Amino acid sequence: MNEYKVILPEAEIPTHWYNIVADLPTPPAPPLNPATDQPLQPADLAPLFPMGLIEQEASAERWIPIPDEVRDIYKLWRPSPMYRAYRLEQALGTTAQIYYKYEGASPVGSHKANSSLPQAYFNMKEGRTRLTTETGAGQWGAALAFAAQIFGLQCDIWQVRNTFEGKPYRHAQMEVFGAHAVASPSELTDVGRKLREQFPDTPGSLGMAISEAVEAAVKDPNASYSLGSVLNHVLLHQTVIGQEALKQLEYFGVAKLDYLYACAGGGSNLGGIAFPFIRENLEGRQDVKIVACEPNAAPSLTKGEFRYDFGDTAGMTPKLKMYTLGQDFVPDPVHAGGLRYHGMAPLVSHCYHEGYLSAIAIRQREAFAAGVLFSRAEGIIPASESNHAIAGAIRQAKLATEEGTSPVILIGVSGSGQLDLPAYTEFLNGEMADS
Amino acid sequence: MNEYKVILPEAEIPTHWYNIVADLPTPPAPPLNPATDQPLQPADLAPLFPMGLIEQEASAERWIPIPDEVRDIYKLWRPSPMYRAYRLEQALGTTAQIYYKYEGASPVGSHKANSSLPQAYFNMKEGRTRLTTETGAGQWGAALAFAAQIFGLQCDIWQVRNTFEGKPYRHAQMEVFGAHAVASPSELTDVGRKLREQFPDTPGSLGMAISEAVEAAVKDPNASYSLGSVLNHVLLHQTVIGQEALKQLEYFGVAKLDYLYACAGGGSNLGGIAFPFIRENLEGRQDVKIVACEPNAAPSLTKGEFRYDFGDTAGMTPKLKMYTLGQDFVPDPVHAGGLRYHGMAPLVSHCYHEGYLSAIAIRQREAFAAGVLFSRAEGIIPASESNHAIAGAIRQAKLATEEGTSPVILIGVSGSGQLDLPAYTEFLNGEMADS
Repeated sequence: MNEYKVILPEAEIPTHWYNIVADLPTPPAPPLNPATDQPLQPADLAPLFPMGLIEQEASAERWIPIPDEVRDIYKLWRPSPMYRAYRLEQALGTTAQIYYKYEGASPVGSHKANSSLPQAYFNMKEGRTRLTTETGAGQWGAALAFAAQIFGLQCDIWQVRNTFEGKPYRHAQMEVFGAHAVASPSELTDVGRKLREQFPDTPGSLGMAISEAVEAAVKDPNASYSLGSVLNHVLLHQTVIGQEALKQLEYFGVAKLDYLYACAGGGSNLGGIAFPFIRENLEGRQDVKIVACEPNAAPSLTKGEFRYDFGDTAGMTPKLKMYTLGQDFVPDPVHAGGLRYHGMAPLVSHCYHEGYLSAIAIRQREAFAAGVLFSRAEGIIPASESNHAIAGAIRQAKLATEEGTSPVILIGVSGSGQLDLPAYTEFLNGEMADS
Repeated sequence: MNEYKVILPEAEIPTHWYNIVADLPTPPAPPLNPATDQPLQPADLAPLFPMGLIEQEASAERWIPIPDEVRDIYKLWRPSPMYRAYRLEQALGTTAQIYYKYEGASPVGSHKANSSLPQAYFNMKEGRTRLTTETGAGQWGAALAFAAQIFGLQCDIWQVRNTFEGKPYRHAQMEVFGAHAVASPSELTDVGRKLREQFPDTPGSLGMAISEAVEAAVKDPNASYSLGSVLNHVLLHQTVIGQEALKQLEYFGVAKLDYLYACAGGGSNLGGIAFPFIRENLEGRQDVKIVACEPNAAPSLTKGEFRYDFGDTAGMTPKLKMYTLGQDFVPDPVHAGGLRYHGMAPLVSHCYHEGYLSAIAIRQREAFAAGVLFSRAEGIIPASESNHAIAGAIRQAKLATEEGTSPVILIGVSGSGQLDLPAYTEFLNGEMADS
């Protein structure tokens, strides 16, 4: 057996985030102010975000330095490991070579901490003392709670009521990190109180939770709102994944990658691992086929329209040019809560539209079958979301075996499935809906 | 800030396990056959264990080679990281230097996989096709399920009924790895059926579960029984932790460690990290004060007697010379299920008796207060068991600050608290009993 795992030394944690905007031959369409339908100005975002993040959101600089204070905390789990999936290859009997980059060893179990840390940091630097956010499955909420604690900020999280009640481990995690998590709709905001009056039995929704978190931030001059995906600055922060992956493949002796599979909900995991590879392609060094794996329950790239739409259900955010299923679209309640989004990050949408990546939609039973196979072969239980990428890669590995080719495939495994275990039980018991 | 984390390269995963028996000035007392009260012979153990493990159990060789097939799988998470706890030091305002060795990044979230892998391997090599075991909180069951899957063995786990029902995430984890987990007492064994008839409402106990797993192994010539702690070969396997820790301290520039804190239930975590340091002490290179941190609910070292006792409640195992609270002792139902054991590994007991280590008992509220402080400072949520070691180290760090000294303290953090989150919630809500 050759090398099995590559962990880079601490010194190889990227020193800069990579901004793909600098390398795009055609510029992505700007976000619009919903009141005027004119391109959004930085000042429009000031009530919600600190200037450090607003500048990143609009930047065209290729490399944006990672502050030392953020890089120091990244060291807690970065560089994240990359493995050669020898035993998965064996289990599949495939002629393909499979590697995976694993983000599940972060303190919160997913890639989300790559962005929550800088978001908390830039808020702290500008004197904000409180962050508000919403969370669905809870991965982003846990990541922001962790980061807020590290940088000494108060953190208030509105979690969709049915997951707040059904997934107690996640809000416990937020509370251990000192955050205040509440089921949404809550009694803490005007919009929450109104919704509770109107729909006393509502299970809540991401749209409702966003509205509450935004209202709370707008009403408090010391507070900012934080978002865990979709926006340019969030994808920017996640590019540490792809930059490390490029170096690790080099250590493994892989000069050219053939396929990259990553799951895509809001788009931050996909963008984070893929953008450095798109740069390789644009500059002619590699020809990597990048495949976004979305859930069949929220197929924004494969079935959505490329147009301006609101980022949230309630229509409170700027309008974004993206692949969207419509702001009112409510995905089936699949377990991959992190992928249940009606749209797709504008930068990922632009790259898809320009042909820099392709997309497939995966039903959740195929995703979990892949997750169980992966768990039993590799010994690591992936997050529900990550299972979609694994399923896509397995399709490709099987095809390669049939065709007698030996492509090199990289899977982005965005998180750990430790807190998704009940979903695995449902699958193993044959009780999972095939949404 | 100086170096913050040391991950050794793969090549520095130990090539041998360290057997402290070779270095002990006085030999530990042998286990006794309970039928004859004579020292146990290897053949007495053959119905339960493969010869490869029986030889390790009785070995006096200092270094026992780790098979390549086991070392390859260790690479999945080993070498495990060591961190300098800068932010914990800051939160405490202490003059002490604190480091921690973290075993929670293993695929099952604890140190237990260090021994489950070689146990499954040696059984596979000798043609056994099935492993049986018991588990309380579920960490050992999950670790054995993982290892059995890797080496292609069937795995049957009897989990104490009240944790089987109250902690569904753990047996889900076992099932994802392909094991069969059942609540004990079960209908699958004679002793189980008898117990269910006698005590229809019993919540089960570790003693009952051991009896079932042993019965199942004895009745099936293709099966072995596996134990997750206490026995010499289990502690032997865990010495990869201490060996790596010695090298990592060297990379950190620490020539002499002052204090080592580790939690102790059955003793495998403590022995695994401490034995290589006891060797340093015995050979005069260092003078490390080693402190076993036991739960106040099961204080075998601090309140037990050093005498022969059964390893299980039902009296089916060999008699072991150890610190014990008596085979009938039932610890309070503290959250640190992995520490709820009436005895202490014979090798750890011997070292304690000879003065090579000391011990303290910690109540669970102090342990969880330490765990919350650690989580908020370091960003990693430790296992309930590990919190006892952290609490012990914090006592020492505070003392050092009062005395104006700067000792170097190492904490063995044996696992992740991801599946212990409800216990943290109970603590934060002020609802935790102070057993």
